[in-house]
Amino acid sequence: MRARLLEATVDLLVERGFTGTSTTLVSERAGVSRGAQLHHFPTKNDLVVAAVEHLTELRAAELAEAVAALPGGKRRTRAVLEMLGDHFASPVFVAALELWVAARTDETLSAAVRPLEQRVGRETHKLTSVALGADESQPGVRELVQATLDLVRGLGLANTFSDDTARRRRILDHWADVLDRELNR
Amino acid sequence: MRARLLEATVDLLVERGFTGTSTTLVSERAGVSRGAQLHHFPTKNDLVVAAVEHLTELRAAELAEAVAALPGGKRRTRAVLEMLGDHFASPVFVAALELWVAARTDETLSAAVRPLEQRVGRETHKLTSVALGADESQPGVRELVQATLDLVRGLGLANTFSDDTARRRRILDHWADVLDRELNR
Repeated sequence: MRARLLEATVDLLVERGFTGTSTTLVSERAGVSRGAQLHHFPTKNDLVVAAVEHLTELRAAELAEAVAALPGGKRRTRAVLEMLGDHFASPVFVAALELWVAARTDETLSAAVRPLEQRVGRETHKLTSVALGADESQPGVRELVQATLDLVRGLGLANTFSDDTARRRRILDHWADVLDRELNR
Repeated sequence: MRARLLEATVDLLVERGFTGTSTTLVSERAGVSRGAQLHHFPTKNDLVVAAVEHLTELRAAELAEAVAALPGGKRRTRAVLEMLGDHFASPVFVAALELWVAARTDETLSAAVRPLEQRVGRETHKLTSVALGADESQPGVRELVQATLDLVRGLGLANTFSDDTARRRRILDHWADVLDRELNR
């Protein structure tokens, strides 16, 4: 029942945005009684933060699996970037974006979202660094990994407005070449 | 009076977000009567789109001036990136972000925001390309300029959540080196 509520919340965040997501709509969508919902999540904020956290964990597990299945050799860098590009163009990113923007002007929500955001940021950085085989003890390599993540975040934002897949592919094709040159491969 | 209304709207988008911005608050903040406001902008959407358009034009003019004042030689690339980084960390970006995210789930707003977004995207790309002295007839150069803009957009998004200035500086320092190497300078 908890998972149903969380999945309905993420769906609604994507479809209707933070403002359009109400606890009533979530309980209807999930087919869960209001009483049961309030027992699990007393407020809208509890629900949306838990929902984005839940989906983020699911996606992190999927990313870790995807990393294990990546090809080695010449095509690896491009495959890592494709994986990240897809991740930041997914509904999970859109739901998280709704939450971040709402949290910007809502202190209670911000206090709940900030630790989640920091943890996710650290984990995604580590996963990316390992996937790229980046040696962060070398000067500039850590910043290159960070720039890669800020790039895919920017691409994710561009994609919320219109389907940006073709442009994203071209940019990531070239970025893979640059990364390989910079990482001396 | 029009300018006062538009500036009050942008201030409120930054302070309270799209949801927290009402036409009543705007007329109070601007010191303009409701009747006069409704004459200029019959709906909230008219007001917020005009406000972000107005500020975007002001900032574009400021950017064009900043480009004219950029140093030449070795330090130019870094100076261009600093200018872009500051632009995407400014209140105008935050107000535009509020508008984009609201437009994602509001068709009327989306129809008004899309042409603005496309025009701004083209103009910012052109300005960046010229400022960097990038020759886009060379393979991969256009994508590198696009990646630079997606990077600063991603950095702008990260900055809405907490002051990210120090991290942004380090990343742009290294990005400037990468750009100079890739553009063969």
